[in-house]
Amino acid sequence: MEKIYQLLNNIQFPEDLKKLTPSQLPQLCEELRDFIIAKTAENPGHLGSSLGTVELTVALHYVFDTPTDKLVWDVGHQAYCHKIITGRKDMFETNRRFGGICGFPRMDESEYDSFGTGHSSTSISAILGMAIADKLSGNNKENHIAVIGDGAIGGGMAFEAMNHAGASNANVLIVLNDNKIAIDKNVGAMSRYLLNITTSPSYNRFKNRLWNLFTFHKNESNKFINFLSKTGNVLKGYMLRGSNLFQSLGFRYFGPANGHDVLYLVKLLQQLKDIPGPKLLHVITIKGRGLSLAEKDQTTYHAPGKFDPDTGELIKADTPNSSMKYQDVFGNTILTLAKKDPKVIGITPAMMTGSSLSIMQKVFPERVFDVGIAEQHAVTFAAGLATKGYIPFCNIYSSFLQRGYDQIIHDVALQELPVIFCIDRGGLVGEDGATHQGIFDLAFLRAIPNMIIASPLNEDALENLLYTAYLNQKNPFAIRYPRGNGVLGQTRQTEFKTLPIGKANLLHSGKEIAILSLGPIGNHVTEAISLLNKQGIDPTHVDIQFLKPLDEDLLHTIVKEHPLLITIEDGTVKGGLFSAVSDFLVLHHYSNQIRPIAIPDLFVEHGDLPNLYRKFGFDAQGIADFIIRQRQS
Amino acid sequence: MEKIYQLLNNIQFPEDLKKLTPSQLPQLCEELRDFIIAKTAENPGHLGSSLGTVELTVALHYVFDTPTDKLVWDVGHQAYCHKIITGRKDMFETNRRFGGICGFPRMDESEYDSFGTGHSSTSISAILGMAIADKLSGNNKENHIAVIGDGAIGGGMAFEAMNHAGASNANVLIVLNDNKIAIDKNVGAMSRYLLNITTSPSYNRFKNRLWNLFTFHKNESNKFINFLSKTGNVLKGYMLRGSNLFQSLGFRYFGPANGHDVLYLVKLLQQLKDIPGPKLLHVITIKGRGLSLAEKDQTTYHAPGKFDPDTGELIKADTPNSSMKYQDVFGNTILTLAKKDPKVIGITPAMMTGSSLSIMQKVFPERVFDVGIAEQHAVTFAAGLATKGYIPFCNIYSSFLQRGYDQIIHDVALQELPVIFCIDRGGLVGEDGATHQGIFDLAFLRAIPNMIIASPLNEDALENLLYTAYLNQKNPFAIRYPRGNGVLGQTRQTEFKTLPIGKANLLHSGKEIAILSLGPIGNHVTEAISLLNKQGIDPTHVDIQFLKPLDEDLLHTIVKEHPLLITIEDGTVKGGLFSAVSDFLVLHHYSNQIRPIAIPDLFVEHGDLPNLYRKFGFDAQGIADFIIRQRQS
Repeated sequence: MEKIYQLLNNIQFPEDLKKLTPSQLPQLCEELRDFIIAKTAENPGHLGSSLGTVELTVALHYVFDTPTDKLVWDVGHQAYCHKIITGRKDMFETNRRFGGICGFPRMDESEYDSFGTGHSSTSISAILGMAIADKLSGNNKENHIAVIGDGAIGGGMAFEAMNHAGASNANVLIVLNDNKIAIDKNVGAMSRYLLNITTSPSYNRFKNRLWNLFTFHKNESNKFINFLSKTGNVLKGYMLRGSNLFQSLGFRYFGPANGHDVLYLVKLLQQLKDIPGPKLLHVITIKGRGLSLAEKDQTTYHAPGKFDPDTGELIKADTPNSSMKYQDVFGNTILTLAKKDPKVIGITPAMMTGSSLSIMQKVFPERVFDVGIAEQHAVTFAAGLATKGYIPFCNIYSSFLQRGYDQIIHDVALQELPVIFCIDRGGLVGEDGATHQGIFDLAFLRAIPNMIIASPLNEDALENLLYTAYLNQKNPFAIRYPRGNGVLGQTRQTEFKTLPIGKANLLHSGKEIAILSLGPIGNHVTEAISLLNKQGIDPTHVDIQFLKPLDEDLLHTIVKEHPLLITIEDGTVKGGLFSAVSDFLVLHHYSNQIRPIAIPDLFVEHGDLPNLYRKFGFDAQGIADFIIRQRQS
Repeated sequence: MEKIYQLLNNIQFPEDLKKLTPSQLPQLCEELRDFIIAKTAENPGHLGSSLGTVELTVALHYVFDTPTDKLVWDVGHQAYCHKIITGRKDMFETNRRFGGICGFPRMDESEYDSFGTGHSSTSISAILGMAIADKLSGNNKENHIAVIGDGAIGGGMAFEAMNHAGASNANVLIVLNDNKIAIDKNVGAMSRYLLNITTSPSYNRFKNRLWNLFTFHKNESNKFINFLSKTGNVLKGYMLRGSNLFQSLGFRYFGPANGHDVLYLVKLLQQLKDIPGPKLLHVITIKGRGLSLAEKDQTTYHAPGKFDPDTGELIKADTPNSSMKYQDVFGNTILTLAKKDPKVIGITPAMMTGSSLSIMQKVFPERVFDVGIAEQHAVTFAAGLATKGYIPFCNIYSSFLQRGYDQIIHDVALQELPVIFCIDRGGLVGEDGATHQGIFDLAFLRAIPNMIIASPLNEDALENLLYTAYLNQKNPFAIRYPRGNGVLGQTRQTEFKTLPIGKANLLHSGKEIAILSLGPIGNHVTEAISLLNKQGIDPTHVDIQFLKPLDEDLLHTIVKEHPLLITIEDGTVKGGLFSAVSDFLVLHHYSNQIRPIAIPDLFVEHGDLPNLYRKFGFDAQGIADFIIRQRQS
């Protein structure tokens, strides 16, 4: 049954929102929450964060003059409500779908998306750039707001930006959306600190009394501001007790405020609007707010998949995949190794559950480190452990590893420290889209001396690579694998095998054409060969397995016997497997034909994997068709 | 005349240092300072920072049990005194020379260098890894010290590490070496904050009184610790006024302390040794301490080149290069553009002088931003400005740009924002060595969609590229150029020219062999061709100029007419120009021979450029010899 949204039905843009009286806003928030739940129940997405920011979003658009005023959502998966009330309500059911709207803000999707996001901790830098631009232009009339979570504000980049903003006189308002959780529970000194502020009863009592002294009619707001500034010297120390971290960095601190009281937020933002300079408003919200199960199990309901919109209960997929997730293979393997060897350490920058490092954490909490959203630190922290003979498995998603690039080069590879990089979400990730596709890793890692770079064909190979890396202890060792389920079903190996480093696997001996694949995409090649065999084409198939060092011995043999080579990799065509094989061919004076199946030199938008695979010719039929075309040309 | 070092003569290692009485330490410090001045006057290096840390270094090695206790020097250019008293005094005159000791700590150089450094803000991550390793091993006896400057502690990575360390119970001591300057004067909210602490008279009076209450005999140290913890509730607010930033992050804060009072430092460190958990000692030092000119002009004397050891006066090079530095070409060009267009903005992460962005800053201080050691923020801040129609020139050294890789991809290229990246110190940088060679940029940038990547042949080309990028305003545009002087002498163009994007320059039409060069290394090719002409070999020479987009039109012509191609680039062979041309060849079914002159797949150690160029065959003779060999093979 289609729900009736009495107020929301009339709202497409913030200008519609502004026609409401403040007293109507709580009802609108309820409707928005219902709308998000109803739509996300059917069309999965980032539920929890967006439920937590309904009131904040409504208040921001009610008070500020977007899109003239600039609003940047850090990470951006909490911005569903923002999308819905800025012209995208009717297409919200296409959220994250192939050809639909993006799950994250995108400048090219709406003028209300002042800056595209996806990765964490970028919002303060971006909004500061805009605020300073506004100041330089002599305009100085826009408001500039960044909404950032308590996890994201711990990222080093956010600190760098605060360090700059706090010393500037730019008019920026940072709204710290504090819900104590990113995907997993937040960690680190900053989190503790925020909790201390939030839970200090005397501080909160005082603050509330102070606020209550004032009614919030516009003509009295100056009184309040005067009060704030006059009492500064006497009361600041008390009032802002515990808030000195932000004060120290040059921000005026306000809060903590209940982020689910929309009227209060509106009043608060109206006051803050007139206060110049860098400000931080600390807002407390509950992730998953309004859906009881989502409030209780915030990690699961971060992005729960399909669920019952009334009860919140998860709906299991019709056709459960009997293969284990690569993530769980990683988790189980590191747990096994950790049991065997007390030197084994697990490190994740805030992806404990997503990476399945949680499997080891449950058994060996003292040897597993969630370092927060801090890829740079994660890498060099691992390097520090490695200097003392520990064996750190540093698990980072491919697109986030871009954040640790300098540290891999400078702290790990240069010093030949045997850190094991478990690169999760390698290749296309699907619905998360352009910001999250793991398509640059092969290229940027191949340039680094001393690195071993591998990608497993399947779950067993992942296990064996992890084991091989564990035994190696000489070089930095990168193992790249995708999001999601493997391919082997229940037929799994029972023991780890040591793999010879730099050796490829000849999976199928055919003729004329050799397909060189890297990683699980090779399973599509196996299917493609079945299709081709029916047409009398029988290509050889090599699972390259190690991008670096390349198996030059096998390549020499293959190249001599096959005039046409096809490389296939779910990464950019510029610098990865194709380039590695091209380099090999030209350096060894071979004149074979070579054709890449790879991601072309562009960013890849969101969509389900089957559609994306089809688009880039990575599915079995696409591979088969490509090969047929090559033979004809 | 060889100086006489009464105490230093007997010191090779910290064990020798420990034989001295505390009262001898001030004299030793003076001798060390003299030694550093004498040696660095002749053999240039990082003078200022190392003069500032003499007392701190002596105190640390006097109190702690290195190398069992771990000591990590952030950045590491302040570690000369450390090197001298840890076994490298006699080879200190080879500092930074080809084949000599490195100017930065190196694990493979000495067991006293607990972690190699070079880039900023890594030390806390590394030392925390070691401290946690020590804890896990059940040993828990080592001390773990990171020495980090007030510039470096503003880097996001340092914050990430503090956020982790402060929430751990690891025994780490961060010594904050606060001299208010990195290379240029430090900026940002953190710097202001540190200045506030340092200059607060009431705070300092109180603190000094408190310290003076206690004599520092070992048996009374517990008293002091007890006092500190007991008075916590009452006095902490007052005593640590202004220090809450570090307290907030879970550190015990001590200081500020006079970093040139070695006896005081020794006492202080002895006390801190016994206090568990994360601690921060704030030490105030003077960069260039002891050499009057170096204290006065700290930026120049950061790395002054040769100077008179007695007066400190700089010694001009015998053969002044009449060509302008590429840096000044950049600085003059951006100034000219800034005069023309109020939208032009200059951004540097703490390299104002080194990049010569200072030339624009002097005229337009309000449009030039030194964002501190914060490459990540620098890139996304530029992106924010670009969204508002400003034209940011973001100047970052090649090896430091590795820190902004994710931001280039995620915030700039994905959104097609026309940020102009001025990549200084591209290619080999010489004496700074492995951590600073700018040899990965071409490879890691080529993988990024929407990027234009160019490198100028000479000063005029740099000017024209900057102008072309300024006019382009469509794509992110990277312009890579080296450290140091150009080649044109006084014969410079008078007006900017617009260059067609993606067009190469045919510099010389020869036959059989085509040399494709990128950047100023092409000038060596010109010389090489003169040498080869004498032997009857006349290769064609193309200045590629744009790595991306490649000039495929010209390449088709060249490839058809020249069976042998040589690419030359001062970057890694994996992923840059050679790979780009290889990819082109195989994709277009060409079977030309191609040979790269490039940096092999390894890290390049320090040394003077002529030696390094010779080593990798980048000098004219090397190029000529290479081509002769290729023809023979």
